[in-house]
Amino acid sequence: MENKGLFISLEGIDGCGKTSVKEGLLQYFSKFPVLSIREPGGTLISEKIREILLDEKNQEITARTEAFLYAAARSQLVEELIRPALLQGKIVLADRYLDSTIAYQGYGRGLDLGFLTTLNQLCTSGLKPHLTLLLDIDPAEGQRRKKKDIPDRLEKEGIEFQSRVREGYLKIARQESERIKLLDAGKDFKEVLQEAIEYIEDIWPARGRA
Amino acid sequence: MENKGLFISLEGIDGCGKTSVKEGLLQYFSKFPVLSIREPGGTLISEKIREILLDEKNQEITARTEAFLYAAARSQLVEELIRPALLQGKIVLADRYLDSTIAYQGYGRGLDLGFLTTLNQLCTSGLKPHLTLLLDIDPAEGQRRKKKDIPDRLEKEGIEFQSRVREGYLKIARQESERIKLLDAGKDFKEVLQEAIEYIEDIWPARGRA
Repeated sequence: MENKGLFISLEGIDGCGKTSVKEGLLQYFSKFPVLSIREPGGTLISEKIREILLDEKNQEITARTEAFLYAAARSQLVEELIRPALLQGKIVLADRYLDSTIAYQGYGRGLDLGFLTTLNQLCTSGLKPHLTLLLDIDPAEGQRRKKKDIPDRLEKEGIEFQSRVREGYLKIARQESERIKLLDAGKDFKEVLQEAIEYIEDIWPARGRA
Repeated sequence: MENKGLFISLEGIDGCGKTSVKEGLLQYFSKFPVLSIREPGGTLISEKIREILLDEKNQEITARTEAFLYAAARSQLVEELIRPALLQGKIVLADRYLDSTIAYQGYGRGLDLGFLTTLNQLCTSGLKPHLTLLLDIDPAEGQRRKKKDIPDRLEKEGIEFQSRVREGYLKIARQESERIKLLDAGKDFKEVLQEAIEYIEDIWPARGRA
């Protein structure tokens, strides 16, 4: 049913350059109808959930509760925005989707991978992206690129945490090499964007580009 | 691990008298350390989730997203309050727990029972009450007790909804007759409370009453 549209997700640790690549892709797709989303926000409900997740005061929130809140936000996003957009033949560009759950909550925080995989399956009803672009970068370089003053609750996690998340991403990419394409985000931005576009063009004609 | 304490949940449709029975049980247990909770609130995070669930403005929230939010609140409740209380040997009295999800979201709203059962398993890590008291009442009688006038169209729909929920509860009680004890909540309150206490005394000595 959703095959009319094209669903692309962007993944990677903090400072990997997802936002810039996404903006480059929005320009590339400028003549097509695009839905651009960002997890865990994007809907009224998801933004409220995002507020709970990022609020510094919520220190006692457990890792499992956090996973359920991400799942709630993703469930709303899938039903309210992603599925309808794909049915209308739109291009969906998602800044983070189900791989973030496995990389951050699983490899990063040590939550059970089976638990998270089941949760992902439930909250997406099995909807996976056609293509996932994994922007891989050295965690120290990632942190240098981030020039924020006040880090939020999730960004305060250190380089060790980011390293575990990165390793997790790389494992997932090996397990699902058909869907997940690895990009060396340490390279010059234009080169990274060009490679991203090549991966898209590899699969897009097959999906019925106009 | 949790076997030191005693975990009792109270279930039933609106107006079944859970609150009064819970108060009676709190008196009965007055010499013991008791944790008294009510879903979906009870922790700082759960209260924030409760705000999202009850906010009139959040009309577009889907039934599945709602289920994930209840699961998030329950997950926090289990980890932050229920498990620690049971490990300390406390008596936990819960006004609603996992059977509410199946009865309301499943039989009431029509969400897939397999989806909800998996979600329940995930958010409780399999922690079930030692005893569940199901206060069964005719939905019309339940509404009368809530001191409403003549039911209008919406309230009549309300009765249909409550009837589906009641039937759901009765099915669950048949499936898990060891754990769930049915009480005729149409009887006099004192009689209902006495029966509830008898069910508790049936299992409590075996759990190591002091």
